[in-house]
Amino acid sequence: MFKAYAAAEAGGAFEAFEYDPGELKAGEVELEVISSGICHSDLSMVNNDWGMTTYPFVGGHEVIGKIVAVGDAVEHLSVGQVAGLGWFSNACMHCQQCMSGDHNLCGSSEATIVGRHGGFADRVRGHANSVVPLPEGVDPMKAGPLFCGGITVFNPMVQFDVRPTDRVGVIGIGGLGHLALQFLSKWGCEVTAFTSSESKAEEARGLGAHHIANSRDPESFKSIAGSLDFVISTVNVSLDWPSYLETLSPKGRLHVVGAAPDVTLPVFPMILGQKSLGGSPVGSPSVIATMLDFAARHGIEPMTERYPMAEINEAFEKLRSGSPRYRLVLAA
Amino acid sequence: MFKAYAAAEAGGAFEAFEYDPGELKAGEVELEVISSGICHSDLSMVNNDWGMTTYPFVGGHEVIGKIVAVGDAVEHLSVGQVAGLGWFSNACMHCQQCMSGDHNLCGSSEATIVGRHGGFADRVRGHANSVVPLPEGVDPMKAGPLFCGGITVFNPMVQFDVRPTDRVGVIGIGGLGHLALQFLSKWGCEVTAFTSSESKAEEARGLGAHHIANSRDPESFKSIAGSLDFVISTVNVSLDWPSYLETLSPKGRLHVVGAAPDVTLPVFPMILGQKSLGGSPVGSPSVIATMLDFAARHGIEPMTERYPMAEINEAFEKLRSGSPRYRLVLAA
Repeated sequence: MFKAYAAAEAGGAFEAFEYDPGELKAGEVELEVISSGICHSDLSMVNNDWGMTTYPFVGGHEVIGKIVAVGDAVEHLSVGQVAGLGWFSNACMHCQQCMSGDHNLCGSSEATIVGRHGGFADRVRGHANSVVPLPEGVDPMKAGPLFCGGITVFNPMVQFDVRPTDRVGVIGIGGLGHLALQFLSKWGCEVTAFTSSESKAEEARGLGAHHIANSRDPESFKSIAGSLDFVISTVNVSLDWPSYLETLSPKGRLHVVGAAPDVTLPVFPMILGQKSLGGSPVGSPSVIATMLDFAARHGIEPMTERYPMAEINEAFEKLRSGSPRYRLVLAA
Repeated sequence: MFKAYAAAEAGGAFEAFEYDPGELKAGEVELEVISSGICHSDLSMVNNDWGMTTYPFVGGHEVIGKIVAVGDAVEHLSVGQVAGLGWFSNACMHCQQCMSGDHNLCGSSEATIVGRHGGFADRVRGHANSVVPLPEGVDPMKAGPLFCGGITVFNPMVQFDVRPTDRVGVIGIGGLGHLALQFLSKWGCEVTAFTSSESKAEEARGLGAHHIANSRDPESFKSIAGSLDFVISTVNVSLDWPSYLETLSPKGRLHVVGAAPDVTLPVFPMILGQKSLGGSPVGSPSVIATMLDFAARHGIEPMTERYPMAEINEAFEKLRSGSPRYRLVLAA
């Protein structure tokens, strides 16, 4: 039996919950959980905000664990390795997307906490195609958030060819944004953090931001008009998108990874400046592996607040309050 | 004196108008007009729809002419050559965009019919940096529309790396769209024309469309959901953009070159499918030259209805009626 924490209903508290995972299937890997990050998506899922939660609900899709069993046909992973499992726990492996290396865009993928149980538990399983070993130098107690928050901001840097010579803006200095600042500054970019919080401005500089733009001050926007090659938004609220569009240089991209409401943009400035709006999900396993190597080489890691797994409800309270700096991790 | 046709006020008819262009400046080229295409932007400018028209207004920014004079310091063009002049008549040549080959994104560029006189005349001038010679095999009586309508749809194919293996959709089978169909089919793509007109559907097939999608039929959209790599919209009206977003494959781009009103899109499908919305203007002189070579090699040319320059008002009446197939050209 796996010992987990589950919510019995939408918005419910987590309670101890045991379940029998059945036989380990061919291709699967079983992890003994070391740590499990808490993502804002876990909160959305507990609340059934997206209408796809099944109860009892065991969240947790930023899981680091030690491999304790591998199913038949698993050849590239072995017992004893420390590895991570993120949003996706399986991909079909044969569609055009999977065969092109874009498993994260597979139309038949399986998500770790959708219709199955995730990492708020002592053990969790995933298909070997979705479990990525940690390289040397990545701390298993802190690496969990890289597997969803981290890869969500790292992936577009790879997909849209952000270059070390680019000027990049980061909207929202939180769980995702504080990782984006680190990745982008180590990537060589000139980094601007958008925030209206003075204390976050200070921290943002420590995380690699070269400039701070006050996200509530029109003058601040004016001073950087037409200058940014890439602006990534990590927030899930509506913003004054046309103003952010104006901060873009010709050929610039406004890139949304936070689940914001509908975006409305004027067409004329997009045409005249050849500008784009886009979005992207978490990355494929190969981009996750690339990110982990990059993080290890540059000493990039999430700033975490740690709770024992048994205090999961206190941790969620902290998340609901909006105040974690910057990412919550449950220690098994 | 240059003999032109000018509108004296917003929405006014064109009347014979003479003006003294002054001395030919260093770097400038003077063209004796052979033909001058009429673009929908000429109509917007006559009407001062964009608030930047000066009167008397001489339109015409799809001009083909014979070079009859070159100013000092013009070394790569010479008297006797047949060349074209499009939306832009000059670029600063030293900004980051110009120095990167993106003269069409220059912030200090000069537009042929904004604050100066265009090609509805017997002669017109432009800076040598913006005048592009016609290669062998391009008909000077038909090539005008390539210099604005044509380059507007060809440029994004270059900028966004549309590949011959891509499936591409074209929204709006008119002045721009009928050229997009030709370019894309000769580029090697699988081309879908969106139209609700039966007679245009027939013509679209003749221009290279492999498939027709009925732009007013939801079933037609459903049948191609998730299949198109690139969809280019040439219309200047509001569409059901979310439905077009759904026709895109993962990593697909919805690309707007028609001056449509604000676009609103849902963020979730953009994130999940790594989709983009973008826009772009006409192309740089070097991309125009590339387009002309491509057009000559593949026998691509605008379908035109020709009027003598003296019948410019009849031609504009035809444009206002929305019925030209597909592009109007004034013969000098």
